[in-house]
Amino acid sequence: MKFNIIHGPNLNFLGIREPEIYGHQTLDDINQEIMAYAMENGHEVSFFQSNYEGAIIDHIQAAHFEKMDGIVINPGAFTHYSYAIHDALKSVSVPAVEVHLSAVHQREEFRKISVTAPACIGQISGFGADSYILGILAVIRHK
Amino acid sequence: MKFNIIHGPNLNFLGIREPEIYGHQTLDDINQEIMAYAMENGHEVSFFQSNYEGAIIDHIQAAHFEKMDGIVINPGAFTHYSYAIHDALKSVSVPAVEVHLSAVHQREEFRKISVTAPACIGQISGFGADSYILGILAVIRHK
Amino acid sequence: MKFNIIHGPNLNFLGIREPEIYGHQTLDDINQEIMAYAMENGHEVSFFQSNYEGAIIDHIQAAHFEKMDGIVINPGAFTHYSYAIHDALKSVSVPAVEVHLSAVHQREEFRKISVTAPACIGQISGFGADSYILGILAVIRHK
Amino acid sequence: MKFNIIHGPNLNFLGIREPEIYGHQTLDDINQEIMAYAMENGHEVSFFQSNYEGAIIDHIQAAHFEKMDGIVINPGAFTHYSYAIHDALKSVSVPAVEVHLSAVHQREEFRKISVTAPACIGQISGFGADSYILGILAVIRHK
Amino acid sequence: MKFNIIHGPNLNFLGIREPEIYGHQTLDDINQEIMAYAMENGHEVSFFQSNYEGAIIDHIQAAHFEKMDGIVINPGAFTHYSYAIHDALKSVSVPAVEVHLSAVHQREEFRKISVTAPACIGQISGFGADSYILGILAVIRHK
Amino acid sequence: MKFNIIHGPNLNFLGIREPEIYGHQTLDDINQEIMAYAMENGHEVSFFQSNYEGAIIDHIQAAHFEKMDGIVINPGAFTHYSYAIHDALKSVSVPAVEVHLSAVHQREEFRKISVTAPACIGQISGFGADSYILGILAVIRHK
Amino acid sequence: MKFNIIHGPNLNFLGIREPEIYGHQTLDDINQEIMAYAMENGHEVSFFQSNYEGAIIDHIQAAHFEKMDGIVINPGAFTHYSYAIHDALKSVSVPAVEVHLSAVHQREEFRKISVTAPACIGQISGFGADSYILGILAVIRHK
Amino acid sequence: MKFNIIHGPNLNFLGIREPEIYGHQTLDDINQEIMAYAMENGHEVSFFQSNYEGAIIDHIQAAHFEKMDGIVINPGAFTHYSYAIHDALKSVSVPAVEVHLSAVHQREEFRKISVTAPACIGQISGFGADSYILGILAVIRHK
Amino acid sequence: MKFNIIHGPNLNFLGIREPEIYGHQTLDDINQEIMAYAMENGHEVSFFQSNYEGAIIDHIQAAHFEKMDGIVINPGAFTHYSYAIHDALKSVSVPAVEVHLSAVHQREEFRKISVTAPACIGQISGFGADSYILGILAVIRHK
Amino acid sequence: MKFNIIHGPNLNFLGIREPEIYGHQTLDDINQEIMAYAMENGHEVSFFQSNYEGAIIDHIQAAHFEKMDGIVINPGAFTHYSYAIHDALKSVSVPAVEVHLSAVHQREEFRKISVTAPACIGQISGFGADSYILGILAVIRHK
Amino acid sequence: MKFNIIHGPNLNFLGIREPEIYGHQTLDDINQEIMAYAMENGHEVSFFQSNYEGAIIDHIQAAHFEKMDGIVINPGAFTHYSYAIHDALKSVSVPAVEVHLSAVHQREEFRKISVTAPACIGQISGFGADSYILGILAVIRHK
Amino acid sequence: MKFNIIHGPNLNFLGIREPEIYGHQTLDDINQEIMAYAMENGHEVSFFQSNYEGAIIDHIQAAHFEKMDGIVINPGAFTHYSYAIHDALKSVSVPAVEVHLSAVHQREEFRKISVTAPACIGQISGFGADSYILGILAVIRHK
Repeated sequence: MKFNIIHGPNLNFLGIREPEIYGHQTLDDINQEIMAYAMENGHEVSFFQSNYEGAIIDHIQAAHFEKMDGIVINPGAFTHYSYAIHDALKSVSVPAVEVHLSAVHQREEFRKISVTAPACIGQISGFGADSYILGILAVIRHK
Repeated sequence: MKFNIIHGPNLNFLGIREPEIYGHQTLDDINQEIMAYAMENGHEVSFFQSNYEGAIIDHIQAAHFEKMDGIVINPGAFTHYSYAIHDALKSVSVPAVEVHLSAVHQREEFRKISVTAPACIGQISGFGADSYILGILAVIRHK
Repeated sequence: MKFNIIHGPNLNFLGIREPEIYGHQTLDDINQEIMAYAMENGHEVSFFQSNYEGAIIDHIQAAHFEKMDGIVINPGAFTHYSYAIHDALKSVSVPAVEVHLSAVHQREEFRKISVTAPACIGQISGFGADSYILGILAVIRHK
Repeated sequence: MKFNIIHGPNLNFLGIREPEIYGHQTLDDINQEIMAYAMENGHEVSFFQSNYEGAIIDHIQAAHFEKMDGIVINPGAFTHYSYAIHDALKSVSVPAVEVHLSAVHQREEFRKISVTAPACIGQISGFGADSYILGILAVIRHK
Repeated sequence: MKFNIIHGPNLNFLGIREPEIYGHQTLDDINQEIMAYAMENGHEVSFFQSNYEGAIIDHIQAAHFEKMDGIVINPGAFTHYSYAIHDALKSVSVPAVEVHLSAVHQREEFRKISVTAPACIGQISGFGADSYILGILAVIRHK
Repeated sequence: MKFNIIHGPNLNFLGIREPEIYGHQTLDDINQEIMAYAMENGHEVSFFQSNYEGAIIDHIQAAHFEKMDGIVINPGAFTHYSYAIHDALKSVSVPAVEVHLSAVHQREEFRKISVTAPACIGQISGFGADSYILGILAVIRHK
Repeated sequence: MKFNIIHGPNLNFLGIREPEIYGHQTLDDINQEIMAYAMENGHEVSFFQSNYEGAIIDHIQAAHFEKMDGIVINPGAFTHYSYAIHDALKSVSVPAVEVHLSAVHQREEFRKISVTAPACIGQISGFGADSYILGILAVIRHK
Repeated sequence: MKFNIIHGPNLNFLGIREPEIYGHQTLDDINQEIMAYAMENGHEVSFFQSNYEGAIIDHIQAAHFEKMDGIVINPGAFTHYSYAIHDALKSVSVPAVEVHLSAVHQREEFRKISVTAPACIGQISGFGADSYILGILAVIRHK
Repeated sequence: MKFNIIHGPNLNFLGIREPEIYGHQTLDDINQEIMAYAMENGHEVSFFQSNYEGAIIDHIQAAHFEKMDGIVINPGAFTHYSYAIHDALKSVSVPAVEVHLSAVHQREEFRKISVTAPACIGQISGFGADSYILGILAVIRHK
Repeated sequence: MKFNIIHGPNLNFLGIREPEIYGHQTLDDINQEIMAYAMENGHEVSFFQSNYEGAIIDHIQAAHFEKMDGIVINPGAFTHYSYAIHDALKSVSVPAVEVHLSAVHQREEFRKISVTAPACIGQISGFGADSYILGILAVIRHK
Repeated sequence: MKFNIIHGPNLNFLGIREPEIYGHQTLDDINQEIMAYAMENGHEVSFFQSNYEGAIIDHIQAAHFEKMDGIVINPGAFTHYSYAIHDALKSVSVPAVEVHLSAVHQREEFRKISVTAPACIGQISGFGADSYILGILAVIRHK
Repeated sequence: MKFNIIHGPNLNFLGIREPEIYGHQTLDDINQEIMAYAMENGHEVSFFQSNYEGAIIDHIQAAHFEKMDGIVINPGAFTHYSYAIHDALKSVSVPAVEVHLSAVHQREEFRKISVTAPACIGQISGFGADSYILGILAVIRHK
């Protein structure tokens, strides 16, 4: 199976960004962890990170044409206002799972609202890099 | 007269995207319908679609320098939060009409709020491709 | 095709009422403009204005029995609270378009909310008398 | 005992209006069902329907002078905003029961708010024509 | 000077309606008190009461053509939702004063909001029949 | 037909609890009144009261297995926050009617909101013990 | 009869302060107009202005001991948040009328809310210096 | 490792309850699926279901004394109002994961708010029985 | 005098639960402190703790029959949503005082709202075990 | 130990002010009751009342320099909006307890919100003069 | 040029008050820093601090008569509710700048709202004593 | 010292865009004014403008690697919804100041809310080009 891992804005600053919340892992570390897991289980994964909402939408649409089996997306701060990403996820035939590194319910009020989750088959938050791996697993079992 | 037709995010997925709401026409079909109408009436139209908010703002600004007679814009999901597009439309001297394919008032709560409409001379929603054609007509008669 | 044009409360005061917002045209002027357009295109239109919510509901119901092809309604201030007109429009089999003379999104907060629009196939605002003509056009193309 | 049955706006369109919600019975059918019940039990009932808020208020006031034993009122969409009907019901000495055909709590958000109920001795919703009959019964037992 | 006194819904039930709030005076008593005051001061007053929002709007519009010097209006419960009366008052060239018999700020929450007052030159509440007389006086001195 | 009458928290204190609102009848009095009515009409009723939300849910579920014809439930204060009872009522195949002794719309703000009603076929409030009897009747006629 | 006229914060700047809203009269002009009216009608009036909430409360309490017949108070901006003045007005046995120079309903949102009015027998707004004179009259007739 | 699986109210009605949302699996089916997974991976799991909020709190506290390695809890409808379960989860030293069978963000508004999630290390929703299994996995990797 | 001390959910976990907020005292420690104080002053106290809302209501009702002189209740998290406990407290003739260990106004937003306090003669928060003792004292002096 | 008792606005009108809520005791009566209690227990108390927010802040600051052991403050109506008093209480090193004579939760909505309590170690309401005495006790035991 | 520096409530407690937020500088230190800057640049500054809202309004009005070139005001907690200071600033012809020592957007919710800022030509927050100096500079360049 | 000046969307239209609000200066004029100031004071500044939220985030991140001493950012309309820029500013180690040309508190409601300010050390608004220069100064003194 083929998966698209999409990282939203500022996730490329993991390791630098508020380590008391996000930990010391870099995005590369996380991607490698995901990759290791995928290879072990015979899946293909591709990674994408962007600080541009438009680029993320383009990428979600591309997943449709590339007939991906699943999208695992961490929309970062876009989670809280990007109805455009919401619409993109609803436009494509690929099932998506929304993931978050941190336990968003324990943080600022604005992080409790997700406008993108209603376009996903499910949501996973709070488990660091594992959130992505659980996301992949969830898509596989969902199929 | 010269018109700029601007399509916001995910409109390039028409025909694919939730056809029970948006119909089976593709964006090309819609553009051709608009073009046919424009040519019949001796007007010039140019088309632009982007999933990038920034690109749409750039394009609105370009319309100012190209001395367009009117902008017909379907901001898609940006309608509901892009104060930046709102500001762009207010910054230029070209009159703009906001259009929507679907009857936005019959859908989710969040689609009932438009932050971009206060920067337009008017708004038209619910008539599929015809929303755009009515938008062109509205600008012409407005002049 | 046969159309019913319904004007809500205070529209009979056009030309007198706040001309800086609504212009100097009287309701008769507008009706004649609509009539001219309709005759040119071979359509039948009838006009109705009332300051009574009940009379407007009666008239919408009458359109059902007269097998009108479309209703073009400017509910005036009723737009913002008349759930009864909303229900009337949903009760009949005639498609309706809600229109407004002014760009309601640029005015007081209360004018941004329409409780009647969810019962219409679409909404057009901001183009003076043209809003009605675009409304007729929209119904025709909708058929 | 003498009862006044008051039907609010659009209830004269029962049978025509959204039958999946309101059923196929017409208002006449309902009235006859009520009448049958009343006669069987030796009560007098009179019926009134109007799309005019003012006419309904006039009618409520009339019930006062006619020394009715009870009012059973389905205010239709007026339920949600007519403080004037609220005041009318509080002005008269006749006990009133508010009834609804459909289970209003299962429908749109705006149908969950009743501004007229605080002026009634009780409220009954969800039982079609039976809502009215239960309303009559409730007044009788209330006496 | 010529004045129009407009009484909204249920005011014809004064004396009957909740006397602990509205007192035992009937509307006739109030009108005579106003009339007495007006005659003493050489003014002309005419009275109008209706339970119909539409009739009140018609009457406000009539005041425009009759070149009244002032409108003193107690919109009753319409105060809290009738944007149509608001628009009517703004449409005419006659200055209007909104009056209330009771001290509306001491009562239910919904009575604290007036949607009609922004269309009036002033508002007076809490003084029974005197609210009207003070309203006339206010218009006279305003001229 | 077999009915389950379910009384929520504090209803066992009827007669003791705020008699100016709830009257002097005890719960036993009410149950006997209901029983009398049921026997007269050849129906079977069983009664249940609990101050435990969980016990009420268990009881609703039991009604499913006992193939009850209807549930008449007064959820007491649970009406205003027990989404768990809401879910229980939706989980079972037995039609339920929500009833209240007092006219809840005339009391504190929090009593105007029912989170359980959307799971019922209808709601009856304001008629003391009769609310239950009307509830039974409503289920019978609903069948 | 003896009246206390209380002017709240910034009213000593009348004539200087935003004359397009408050006019060119100074507070002295207004006081003289009120005094003239009072003397003509055989009443005693005393004036007080302060920018201190505490001083206004002290003054309201003093009116109690001086056995004033009425207080006419323009709380200025304190209208919108001084629950302490509200409590002071409720603490004393002297009837008070709240007045405003301008038509507060036509201005900023925050000016539409009065927390002091619920402690007054009535409210008058929009008539410049006349608001005070009408206030005195209202108290006299109220007695 | 030892895990406690806690099922909230109405989950014992899975298979019976709205199968279009919750599927045809019973709670036993789900528990067996979880058990199979646990045994395969050498973990111990115990199951608990209750319709009583108090019983669930007792059970969470017991997990503390039994030195469980993790709690996987589906609080059902309690998710939306049980601050008591929230406090229980914060009181114990065992890490908890909140899980939901359905994609709660796609359903009623009230299901989007979780008051229990801020007391959990993470949240997983939308994957049926797999939500629980992913929850166990998440705790394991969290350790 | 006889007092009932009622501890709500999770208070049995004092000493274990978030000691930085609730301190290191266990519930037993607190009860002994209360007992010592009561014996010194010649009062009788009985203690009750439950995680079940229903058990707490049962207990409040029992206090009525046992003719307790006062209830001192710390409803724990039930403070914020249990209208059922509110109703129970209003149903009985025993005066109740609501107490809290911590200074609830300094904590999460949801802890600032008490739905149970309006049914108590007073509220005391912030003084640890002393809150209970002050509560007993308050009842005694209240008598 | 040395205590500062601070009484906010209008508390000097106790005995005069709404006795059905505040009782017939004057502030002097209350102060003497407090004084008696203090002397009996060997504490020093000083009293201060002001209708001026500024004077209360000055007084709170003075308590800091006078090294008071505790402040017992009834901020009266300032409770609901004086962030300045809130800041003053947080600025000083003296522990403060907020007290209220009446059971504020049983009164108007606005009295349920305290903006000053988050700056106090605790809050006591509902016990008349005893609220102050309990406040002193609370500080003593807090030390 | 002549400047008025106005410090609101509790600013006289700088150095004592929450030093982790406000630092260890006293108000005197800050004033000297400002004075030094002013003298260096040939400007005159005068300082004023008060815990009384009324005194601050008086002082703002005095600045008008003293023909000050600018006001630099830190309204302290009055920022969040003093519409009276807002009105004072609008009443005078002297341009004012609102300043704050701390970064108010990073603190409690209530500190994010300024009701006084709409009456100022600008606002500066977050730079300690420098906020004032930047405020002086801003006025100078504004001229 | 090295500074990054970041201009958000539509700021490249200064001089064209609503000159009654933003003045006649172009962005180049502003940049030159800033540059002049910087050179005079021996600082290095670089400028960046973009209509793309993503480009602004990239640029903020670049400032981190380029070891800038400060960021002065005018996020334009992004101020009101871009949590992604908020997160970017929090991710980097460079102190940022938010600036606005106009006095945002005097304009539309939506401009009063800043979601980016909580990630800045301070905020300056209302002084045209000087807002930027004051921002630079503020960073310098902050160091």
